[in-house]
Amino acid sequence: MFQSGDFVIGVDLGGTKILAAAFEIGKKGGIKRASGQVKRKTPAGEGPARLVETIAEAVESIAASMAAEPGSGVCRALGVAVPGPLDRAKGIVRYTPNLGLENYPLAAELSRRLNLPVTLENDVQSGVYGELKAGALRGKKQAVGIFVGTGIGGGIVIDGRLYRGATGSAGEIGHMIVHEGGALCGCGNYGCLEAHASRTALAKDAVALASAGKAPGMLKAAGVNFRKYRSSAFAEALSGKDAAIAKAVDRAAFWLGVGMANLVNILNPEAIVLGGGVVARFGKRYLDGASAAMRARLMPGLADSVQVLLSELGDLAVPAGAALMALEAVVGAEASPGTEVVDGDTGEGAPA
Amino acid sequence: MFQSGDFVIGVDLGGTKILAAAFEIGKKGGIKRASGQVKRKTPAGEGPARLVETIAEAVESIAASMAAEPGSGVCRALGVAVPGPLDRAKGIVRYTPNLGLENYPLAAELSRRLNLPVTLENDVQSGVYGELKAGALRGKKQAVGIFVGTGIGGGIVIDGRLYRGATGSAGEIGHMIVHEGGALCGCGNYGCLEAHASRTALAKDAVALASAGKAPGMLKAAGVNFRKYRSSAFAEALSGKDAAIAKAVDRAAFWLGVGMANLVNILNPEAIVLGGGVVARFGKRYLDGASAAMRARLMPGLADSVQVLLSELGDLAVPAGAALMALEAVVGAEASPGTEVVDGDTGEGAPA
Repeated sequence: MFQSGDFVIGVDLGGTKILAAAFEIGKKGGIKRASGQVKRKTPAGEGPARLVETIAEAVESIAASMAAEPGSGVCRALGVAVPGPLDRAKGIVRYTPNLGLENYPLAAELSRRLNLPVTLENDVQSGVYGELKAGALRGKKQAVGIFVGTGIGGGIVIDGRLYRGATGSAGEIGHMIVHEGGALCGCGNYGCLEAHASRTALAKDAVALASAGKAPGMLKAAGVNFRKYRSSAFAEALSGKDAAIAKAVDRAAFWLGVGMANLVNILNPEAIVLGGGVVARFGKRYLDGASAAMRARLMPGLADSVQVLLSELGDLAVPAGAALMALEAVVGAEASPGTEVVDGDTGEGAPA
Repeated sequence: MFQSGDFVIGVDLGGTKILAAAFEIGKKGGIKRASGQVKRKTPAGEGPARLVETIAEAVESIAASMAAEPGSGVCRALGVAVPGPLDRAKGIVRYTPNLGLENYPLAAELSRRLNLPVTLENDVQSGVYGELKAGALRGKKQAVGIFVGTGIGGGIVIDGRLYRGATGSAGEIGHMIVHEGGALCGCGNYGCLEAHASRTALAKDAVALASAGKAPGMLKAAGVNFRKYRSSAFAEALSGKDAAIAKAVDRAAFWLGVGMANLVNILNPEAIVLGGGVVARFGKRYLDGASAAMRARLMPGLADSVQVLLSELGDLAVPAGAALMALEAVVGAEASPGTEVVDGDTGEGAPA
């Protein structure tokens, strides 16, 4: 049903940036490595029409550059990954605190504007699906994906498929309570994993340390403006040997490990894949810290049965998963059997 | 393949007692209500031979009473539920701290002694399976079972089946950390759900209160002998309006609710079933406390999607699940389609 050269586009619609990537459709279905990608700044707070236009422009831009290649085909579908709850069947975004969408028919609007079939998916579920079909979790039957960034999201793989739960909300692992009565979480509870191990949690400690003159590297990298406490600023402070920040990062890794242990004790997966900006930039010490805290808390036998893996697709995990799901919606079935590896340029945000 | 009146026996091999129950096999497969049951004191610490003999005697006793009934058939299989890790395929008990078994071929020994096909299963998994096929979880697709007693065990139902995990160890929910750095757990870690919400956790507080003269009802019911701090003694203290014990029980319910919230946020089940001695005896106030703590911690939308249910089978959940699995091993497939309700005499330990 597809011509050689036909492709599918996946979009990661984030609070600060929009990443669109095109993936050529494989001969046996599935997707090949990313053929091109573009980034746009998210026009947050400028209304839905402006957001739709920005996404559409990014998609058209990447489609145009694909069309310029010899042997190129046409774009067959668009998958958009959204940071928030949604109604997948109806293509409606329920709400997204950072984007200002509420009960908005994003799929229909984009479909009308671009004349393409459009599917919506949760961003973390897309990322885990990308890793499952074309990344670090390829071939795994029981697995967990954890994405650490501003928040912490997760996806659960059971019998080789994304597990959705009874009402499609499974995987809220960031709000698993690991320290009841502990740090205040954005959700209003205390002691959630996200409140102790996300970049936001880390930024709360780091900005106070910097402001008090105890984290000179961090102060140099980001001042005392909380919004500048991004993963890149932390990485800069760490490379500058800021001891207080190194300690705070060690602590965040510890808490991540506690959450990982809970998931392994509950679900007994064969692998955990870690992704997201924090994981990509904090390196081996962070990963080793998380793994050590996890292993110390596993029941007998479980420590030997679980692998801790790094995201293979980096920033492309989310667009790849969204693109795959859009493709599957078009062909009406799982495109998994022939899925080929996504191993193209994974962009500046990919893990080293 | 079965004659009318044929039955299957399930045994709950506990640290203090052995409960054996016979279930008539239904015409379309599955089991009918329990036709008889016997209890024996567990000969703990007297060696494997004595344990095998006690189980065998209980099974023979119940089989003999079944044979005395008009229209009775024969016992077709035995399922034994064991409190500890095991190799189901080989019928070997890996270890059971309370029973003194280590890498012991319990299935083969019982099979030889009784001339019956024997299967082994974990006790909590058996209990959840019993509730799934013949109790409170009948017809549920996504669910979680939590059994609260000396420890806390769990079973996860995905797509209507018990979820085993990658190596058969899924469901160690008692060792989910809800309060890192909190109470010392029997596993050696701090802050496990079991360390805050099990009867053992409660007994630690209660015995100290009783010893200090602050829990007169508890002191009357159980003295200061830690081993007498059973669910029945707590129930007695509560019925005697021991305020300090009521407060401790409220706190245990609170922690159970925190653990339940984590499981719902992670797995998005349609139902949670609660069972075990603690749940059976502590009543509505305990359940309401746990549910309230849970609901306060759920992500938007999840609170409306989950039911909190009480075990329907009580003490018979574990034997029923073990019996069903033994039956399925004999017929070589799931006996679920024709499973009939187990609604017979549920014995003294059943919930009110």
